[in-house]
Amino acid sequence: MIRFYNGLTLEPAGVTENEVWVDGSAISYVGPARADMPAFERQVDLKGDLLMPGFKNAHTHSAMTFLRSAADDLPLQDWLQKQVFPREKKLDAERVAAFTKVAFLEYLANGITACFDMYFYPDAFVQVAKDWGFRAIMCESLTSVTNDDPNRVYERYEKYNDMGPFVGYRLGFHAEYTNGIDAFKTVAEAAHRFKAPVWCHNSETKKETEECVAKYGKTPTALFDSLGMYDYGGGGYHCVYFTPEDMDIFAKRGCTAVINACSNGKLASGIFPLKLAVEKGVNLAVGTDGPASNNALDMFREMYLINITAKLREGDAAAGDPALILNAAVSGGARAMGLNDCDAVAAGKQADLVRIDMHRPNMRPVHNVVKNLVYSGDPSNVRMTMIAGVVRYEDGQFFVGEDPEDVYREAERLTKAIFEE
Amino acid sequence: MIRFYNGLTLEPAGVTENEVWVDGSAISYVGPARADMPAFERQVDLKGDLLMPGFKNAHTHSAMTFLRSAADDLPLQDWLQKQVFPREKKLDAERVAAFTKVAFLEYLANGITACFDMYFYPDAFVQVAKDWGFRAIMCESLTSVTNDDPNRVYERYEKYNDMGPFVGYRLGFHAEYTNGIDAFKTVAEAAHRFKAPVWCHNSETKKETEECVAKYGKTPTALFDSLGMYDYGGGGYHCVYFTPEDMDIFAKRGCTAVINACSNGKLASGIFPLKLAVEKGVNLAVGTDGPASNNALDMFREMYLINITAKLREGDAAAGDPALILNAAVSGGARAMGLNDCDAVAAGKQADLVRIDMHRPNMRPVHNVVKNLVYSGDPSNVRMTMIAGVVRYEDGQFFVGEDPEDVYREAERLTKAIFEE
Repeated sequence: MIRFYNGLTLEPAGVTENEVWVDGSAISYVGPARADMPAFERQVDLKGDLLMPGFKNAHTHSAMTFLRSAADDLPLQDWLQKQVFPREKKLDAERVAAFTKVAFLEYLANGITACFDMYFYPDAFVQVAKDWGFRAIMCESLTSVTNDDPNRVYERYEKYNDMGPFVGYRLGFHAEYTNGIDAFKTVAEAAHRFKAPVWCHNSETKKETEECVAKYGKTPTALFDSLGMYDYGGGGYHCVYFTPEDMDIFAKRGCTAVINACSNGKLASGIFPLKLAVEKGVNLAVGTDGPASNNALDMFREMYLINITAKLREGDAAAGDPALILNAAVSGGARAMGLNDCDAVAAGKQADLVRIDMHRPNMRPVHNVVKNLVYSGDPSNVRMTMIAGVVRYEDGQFFVGEDPEDVYREAERLTKAIFEE
Repeated sequence: MIRFYNGLTLEPAGVTENEVWVDGSAISYVGPARADMPAFERQVDLKGDLLMPGFKNAHTHSAMTFLRSAADDLPLQDWLQKQVFPREKKLDAERVAAFTKVAFLEYLANGITACFDMYFYPDAFVQVAKDWGFRAIMCESLTSVTNDDPNRVYERYEKYNDMGPFVGYRLGFHAEYTNGIDAFKTVAEAAHRFKAPVWCHNSETKKETEECVAKYGKTPTALFDSLGMYDYGGGGYHCVYFTPEDMDIFAKRGCTAVINACSNGKLASGIFPLKLAVEKGVNLAVGTDGPASNNALDMFREMYLINITAKLREGDAAAGDPALILNAAVSGGARAMGLNDCDAVAAGKQADLVRIDMHRPNMRPVHNVVKNLVYSGDPSNVRMTMIAGVVRYEDGQFFVGEDPEDVYREAERLTKAIFEE
């Protein structure tokens, strides 16, 4: 057992001075110091630091690290057609595994304990997650661009949901504009068969949304709902051009809108309508999107930008809500990913924990811990990241069974191969 | 002498593999390894890390750390009138010194080697700068709100520009809306007397800009220029509502627009017109503004947000320019502050240097060092900050002659006093 004491704890009800005990993969106790203490393998004096649940990166394409800083500041179509798609054609299982590892290192260094990923070569991806003990939920990436067979969702659903605590698979598809009606119907049927939620990129750009309305006479959300796609919940990534009616559908179906503020800014897609989503009572989560369109995998920056762009969108300094967005980045993401036992610091929950350094000057003075996290926190405040009771990152060192320098070297070698082929 | 070798160096012409030697307060050599090496006191193997010039925070109110996370998410006037002004009335020299120290620690941890500050109790402020060896240029904060005598600029100009290499004073005033025409005329006269540049908050909000036009029939910039205020240069902080004609005036006078993207977002003031400024050829610099309106003192976040909001403002993913903004955050700021010998890694320049950790995963792979810095860099990448040849921060430790914990304790005590008085 591991004991964390002499610090602050971010619990569902707020910040406390409780200590936290971890037994195996789970939290066994959260409360005041007790006389009847068990024997601990390790006792961590937090010295006033904060223990909080790990961030859940609720939308990403992890392996796209190989395109970081390789294709920026381009119009969206040039970026996709000229920079991204031709290089993605050169991917294989080995390359996806190598590039995923760079992202996982970044997640760990930044206090992220789980990701909701959409990409190619799922076997390679889940092997890294299992080997490193990192929680990785995959969303089906179905697209007609690569002639995927929609029926593969049946086999994948059963295969990847039977791989233990670190791996999961959710029904979905890439987006409306990259699929036809037959694919949507197949996914909707699978949702009913498995009583499962469905996910996809939704209303990310104005163009995509307008073209869907022109084609189907409905927004993407209304179209998917009309096919019974959300009868068991699910949600959308981006959701920038959601109408009030789209928000109503999401609220009614218990769906989650995943906000990707940095990506929406960098690709000039627009600003998520946070005020509208909150008014409509839509579940929220936070994602970085892939490192080619962000370019960091940093939930502090996401939380900051969501609040800042909400203020700019509304022209109102009172817009935004740091506590709500922190909750979205932690438990909202866990709920979206189906990781309902990884969402909070509470007895019985999985020990997916992050230690936040409160002795860096950006955290002082301490008027409000939550606002400090959202408005002035950054990755330099992450001292430790634990997943399922195992410390995977602490004080700059990684504990994943591989030397980060080997990971970087391999990723650089394989990146170079793609760019020079 | 200190030798930095086996890394990358950000020089004015680009990234090189040159080594850098520091002799006393200055850089003595930048170039390839040489056979005729002197005896070094310390040799730093950079192991592939990047050595770059320190960031110059070109607009801030350092001591406002005491209001960090104390007053957020409020409409601008409520924030100023109810949260900021009543508490600032309780400041004194001791408190300003204590709160300034927290900011200086954050600057050092974040790779910032100089700040352009505007606040109260200049003697207390400059004493911290001198004691800690931090470069602090003050801008005159003249305002009729506190009944300041405009003529004080004459005495202050001579006093604070005669205090050695770490302290300087620039003519200026708070803003148009907090001063009358007599103050402007006094400052303009002083500018002519000293042949000196003039600075102030300028066109930060739409309301302020429109009210100036209603009162004087001119934008703030046109008004100031008509009084001869910019005959020796200077510039403005924020400049969000600059017209094309305002930009023309700044370009003609060699003035600098200091961009404060985070503050302009958090207070919902608007987005700086970067595209227009670049088209007009205006000098640019970057500032964090004070920690009450940001809330971090982080130039990585500023550079990121400037580019992201430029893309959102123009609706164009190709807008923004990471190399230009990095240059503004380093040499643009040095130029604005009159620190012309602190702007670059080159022989003869002051050794104001930062070591960037290239072994954190957010910096990998390395397609483009500059884009990595601007789009995925964060304070966790700062391994060392050196000012005038002295290491002031390295690997989480501060070297300023005081224990950070003592600084935090004193700042918390004095903050509490202000809030409980």
